[in-house]
Amino acid sequence: MLRLTADAAGGAPWWSGQGSATRWYVRQAMARRPGRPRASGDPSGDRDTRQDVLAAAAALFCTVGFTATSTRAIAERAGVRQATMYHHFAGKDALLLELLLGTVRPSVELADALAGSTEDPARRLWTLARADVQLLLGGELNLGALYVLPEIAGEQFAAFHALRDQLRARYTDLAAQAEEAVTGERSAVPGPGPLVFGLVESVILRRRDEPDVDLEGVADAVADGVLRLVGCTPAQVAAARLP
Amino acid sequence: MLRLTADAAGGAPWWSGQGSATRWYVRQAMARRPGRPRASGDPSGDRDTRQDVLAAAAALFCTVGFTATSTRAIAERAGVRQATMYHHFAGKDALLLELLLGTVRPSVELADALAGSTEDPARRLWTLARADVQLLLGGELNLGALYVLPEIAGEQFAAFHALRDQLRARYTDLAAQAEEAVTGERSAVPGPGPLVFGLVESVILRRRDEPDVDLEGVADAVADGVLRLVGCTPAQVAAARLP
Repeated sequence: MLRLTADAAGGAPWWSGQGSATRWYVRQAMARRPGRPRASGDPSGDRDTRQDVLAAAAALFCTVGFTATSTRAIAERAGVRQATMYHHFAGKDALLLELLLGTVRPSVELADALAGSTEDPARRLWTLARADVQLLLGGELNLGALYVLPEIAGEQFAAFHALRDQLRARYTDLAAQAEEAVTGERSAVPGPGPLVFGLVESVILRRRDEPDVDLEGVADAVADGVLRLVGCTPAQVAAARLP
Repeated sequence: MLRLTADAAGGAPWWSGQGSATRWYVRQAMARRPGRPRASGDPSGDRDTRQDVLAAAAALFCTVGFTATSTRAIAERAGVRQATMYHHFAGKDALLLELLLGTVRPSVELADALAGSTEDPARRLWTLARADVQLLLGGELNLGALYVLPEIAGEQFAAFHALRDQLRARYTDLAAQAEEAVTGERSAVPGPGPLVFGLVESVILRRRDEPDVDLEGVADAVADGVLRLVGCTPAQVAAARLP
């Protein structure tokens, strides 16, 4: 299977010729692996406590459910006093917001970096979709499943909706560019953007069904599928994948 | 926009030449429209009561959430006594199971009918995907959002998982057949099936974001996208859509 690494095809990866910000973000995205952030060297332990509370909230929201989880249960699972938890987060809503933001922020940052790149749009779209799928399938928990909670319609989650809207807009724009580049024309509004975004996020439901899903295989397959949706021929898909 | 009706292109629809079971199911699927089932002529009112309870449960599960909804609240909203509700359903789990089954049963029936058809696989796949999207986007509530509830992992929902697995298997089989028919070869296992199934069900998340989504437009777009995923060229997609 082709990989976005230099050694896979004996050459430098495409993004090595890009600006430093693009290189940094693409490398970060490529290197992203499942698992919670490492314990920091923070002497006060504040960052670790914050991460412990977030991890405890994530585990409870995804297994017991958001409504059924109390702040007391979160503090207990994190092994901290409730007062300590409140020092970091105003409550359950603030915890859920932070977890939701984490499911889109890295992809928005990558999309922003790719938007400044001169690379072929199909290749940029493939890179974004693949990294996004890795993000959604990585980590111990399926945090994307929280997207359908009735509770997140509230104003307190506006920052998440705004950031996800930004990501969707980046996909829509990049998909339209890629479609034009490979087919010579753009389809009528809304174009392939919504289908592309839908296919990427469909891994949230897939992971629900296949907890041991092959992350790398699915990331490649979805990124290839995204290119099919914008009109790439099999040869164009293969070209977009090459380093 | 092309529609699967005879008058759209002046000819008889493709499924009119199929066996009677196929014709019946395809007509049912094509005629399906949003909205709860009509009140029956059932003199005891049992069927209406059952539907009222189901509708009340659906509304509460999708807005308040499954965990936060009590059987008392469901009975109150349905305008029946709790004892009457229990006459029809053993409890919240039984209600949720019935609602979940309703999101896949019509599509499995259509898929079974289409499996017995002699029509071109790409056309059958397009028909199934389009009807399935109409089912998921139809009705007043986004019942597919219940798929990610942590609660449905339990054994009491095995019938739903079995039926959805059956639908996934039908898609996988039909997608492989369609791929072979249009490209002359089959890709390695798992083939395009999981991406196809994911793209169809992605409308669950999309509806969460766009409550007033254009049902017919999205159904056509997703069904077209499904054919792109199995390798159809634009001309092959257009051919599959013709009546």
